Amino acid sequence: MSLIGLSHKDLLSIDQLNVDEINLILDTADSLKEISKREIKKVPTLRGKTIVNFFYEPSTRTKTSFEIAAKRLSADTVSLSASTSSMVKGETLIDTAKNLQAMNPDLIVIRHSSSGAPHLLARHVEAGVINAGDGINEHPTQALLDMLTIREKKGEIAGLRVAIIGDIAHSRVARSNVIGLRKMGAHVTVCGPPTMMPMGVGELGVDVQYDIRRAVEDKDVIMVLRIQLERQAGSLFPGVREYSRFFGLNRAVLSRAKPDAIVMHPGPMNRGVEIEPEVADGPWSVILEQVANGVAVRMAVLYLLMGGSKSDDMD
Amino acid sequence: MSLIGLSHKDLLSIDQLNVDEINLILDTADSLKEISKREIKKVPTLRGKTIVNFFYEPSTRTKTSFEIAAKRLSADTVSLSASTSSMVKGETLIDTAKNLQAMNPDLIVIRHSSSGAPHLLARHVEAGVINAGDGINEHPTQALLDMLTIREKKGEIAGLRVAIIGDIAHSRVARSNVIGLRKMGAHVTVCGPPTMMPMGVGELGVDVQYDIRRAVEDKDVIMVLRIQLERQAGSLFPGVREYSRFFGLNRAVLSRAKPDAIVMHPGPMNRGVEIEPEVADGPWSVILEQVANGVAVRMAVLYLLMGGSKSDDMD
Amino acid sequence: MSLIGLSHKDLLSIDQLNVDEINLILDTADSLKEISKREIKKVPTLRGKTIVNFFYEPSTRTKTSFEIAAKRLSADTVSLSASTSSMVKGETLIDTAKNLQAMNPDLIVIRHSSSGAPHLLARHVEAGVINAGDGINEHPTQALLDMLTIREKKGEIAGLRVAIIGDIAHSRVARSNVIGLRKMGAHVTVCGPPTMMPMGVGELGVDVQYDIRRAVEDKDVIMVLRIQLERQAGSLFPGVREYSRFFGLNRAVLSRAKPDAIVMHPGPMNRGVEIEPEVADGPWSVILEQVANGVAVRMAVLYLLMGGSKSDDMD
Repeated sequence: MSLIGLSHKDLLSIDQLNVDEINLILDTADSLKEISKREIKKVPTLRGKTIVNFFYEPSTRTKTSFEIAAKRLSADTVSLSASTSSMVKGETLIDTAKNLQAMNPDLIVIRHSSSGAPHLLARHVEAGVINAGDGINEHPTQALLDMLTIREKKGEIAGLRVAIIGDIAHSRVARSNVIGLRKMGAHVTVCGPPTMMPMGVGELGVDVQYDIRRAVEDKDVIMVLRIQLERQAGSLFPGVREYSRFFGLNRAVLSRAKPDAIVMHPGPMNRGVEIEPEVADGPWSVILEQVANGVAVRMAVLYLLMGGSKSDDMD
Repeated sequence: MSLIGLSHKDLLSIDQLNVDEINLILDTADSLKEISKREIKKVPTLRGKTIVNFFYEPSTRTKTSFEIAAKRLSADTVSLSASTSSMVKGETLIDTAKNLQAMNPDLIVIRHSSSGAPHLLARHVEAGVINAGDGINEHPTQALLDMLTIREKKGEIAGLRVAIIGDIAHSRVARSNVIGLRKMGAHVTVCGPPTMMPMGVGELGVDVQYDIRRAVEDKDVIMVLRIQLERQAGSLFPGVREYSRFFGLNRAVLSRAKPDAIVMHPGPMNRGVEIEPEVADGPWSVILEQVANGVAVRMAVLYLLMGGSKSDDMD
Repeated sequence: MSLIGLSHKDLLSIDQLNVDEINLILDTADSLKEISKREIKKVPTLRGKTIVNFFYEPSTRTKTSFEIAAKRLSADTVSLSASTSSMVKGETLIDTAKNLQAMNPDLIVIRHSSSGAPHLLARHVEAGVINAGDGINEHPTQALLDMLTIREKKGEIAGLRVAIIGDIAHSRVARSNVIGLRKMGAHVTVCGPPTMMPMGVGELGVDVQYDIRRAVEDKDVIMVLRIQLERQAGSLFPGVREYSRFFGLNRAVLSRAKPDAIVMHPGPMNRGVEIEPEVADGPWSVILEQVANGVAVRMAVLYLLMGGSKSDDMD
């Protein structure tokens, strides 16, 4: 492979990455994983670099994962949150961006409820920008950690049959995974209630199923999405019980997948709603491997965006 | 002493520690205290270790103490709080625990409103767990810092006469101290309104007094508990004024203790309620020594749980 | 210059500093600025020092600036905020101060809604105290970064003509700048609605104007203050539209200043209220330089209060 680094200063979407770049990130994550298992879980690679975690939406899981990744590479981290942010009051995102830039950070990790906010930020700062989830658009590091997990379990992504179950229309996790998995050569089926299917789903290059039993049939990977109970109940589907009955992944449904199928979930899980405990905790579940791979993928992205290349020494 | 380390991966309670282990922690804290007074207040002992501070209940004092302790040993710290924690939403504590574990922390410091939560967490993670206060159950590092303070002032804990005044039934500080001080050979008297006495208090191996003047009589140590004004006023006692009148520690009451008695309080104090300013600020008060010893005791616990032993080099 | 360090342990006000001390801080900031542009933005100068950021009022901008400054000097930082602070509940500021001191921090950076709170804190702790804004009293590091910016752009502060526009009576930024700029030999004009002028403004040694066109006339520096929309609208002036019409800085008004005048704003800006976008984004604007200088000035203050002197090696 001739590619030795990423071609952009930012990671805004899976859409922007080509297959070589995705492989580069996954390979780098793979080699960084081992650091988190050492006695001393830290390398000096990003010493003296400043990473700003700017989360307009609360997200302990993703924020903690980025923060641990940064610290294991010896970067300094500063956290801003929207609730305590006077920057946000009466100030445009562009002004906020320029203000942050003036403090000379190396990377800004941003989560925002508006699709496209990270892209806007990236155009106005010299620092690299990582999209940690923007509205219903993309969540690229989630898709990368999912792909790393699939690759570890299945050897190769190309040719795999993957089902994604849930609110396809409003899930940035689904969107980033559909784009990424298709790029890597997987065959993707999406499944959910008709109200949760995006307009023009037929043009995404995926199979569409409204019956979960048919969706999981003969699949290598079943990816279950989190139902946003607080947001969705009542409007997009009749209720939690109905959702669980028709679209919850239980053992009977799972038995229609391939015998060695794996089950994924981005967390946090609503046990008994989109996934039954017997499925979440079974031998097919790779849900906790996803979390562990999240730290490794984020270390890889931080490292590569900061100019690291595959041949660099890691210690 | 043949003991060179702690026998558990966790510190969940004073109850779990034997006398040798308590002495080991106090001795280690004693030798670590000096670091906080150096020009450069930092040793590389825990470099590359990840400590997660997970506080479901707000607590600046204890959290800050743990954070400073971790940083003085060069550990990396990550803070999660319940209010911003998406981990908490729709997720069981066990799922949260497993998720945290997947990120490979070395230690998790947890405060939780439910008694037993740290024990549940500890059973589901490989990382060490430190109970920073669970419901009305235990607050072991508070009792350890109290014991360190008493030992510093009195030379030895065995044989001392200690009075604990306040809401004995609902105080984890009282509970951990009763257990610890009795283990170390002190004689303990508890005192408070009858509504604040635990059921079966007679079986705790302590004296029970409902008259503060008799409780402090001839004591070496008077430990005053904080009244949770927001929680308790109105239900457990008629009012702040009555509490203060009958159970507040003032100078007249204190004069019944031994002439060299010391006065302790876990903070934050309600001046004029459970303790009069003249008592809080007098020469008998060791309240600020308690705070300083809190950092030292937490450094010792972090160090010992991470595999440190008494003979290790500290610099 | 014979001065090699600051004479106080604290930075509570511009009022306390003499001209030599202001110059020392600005010169030190100037030499530290370069660190933020390095590949590795970090020097070990304050390794092993503990800095507590204690913000009773939310302030992402100032807090982030202090945090980045501390990290670039390798200090450890611990953040307390009033909302999560159990220290604050039922505890006097003096008790809080003594408790913090017991944990042996080197510096405490405090923002508080009460004027004089940092001074009270400073009297009760051995640690150095930095006022990061107290009520309507002072915000010394803001004035220092403003003076650094002016000096960079104009060569010298002495002899310059400066206009400050806005709520002069309730702005600690205005107050610290009036004191500092006058000390440094500038001529200051203040301008705002009569309801926003402090009583006895005539005794401040400044010109007072109620017409913005006359205020900016022939000035070298125009400093626009933020209107606290949430607080002020309705009570001190008829409305946002009226304020903007009579006191907003637009291009027509700015044309009355000197041709090479610079425009400053402490942020966050209310675009279209106190300042028009065409002015905020024009070539005269040094608003982002102010932010960058904020990090440098805070690095200088942390360094000098911790005993650093001009002749010390910075790397």
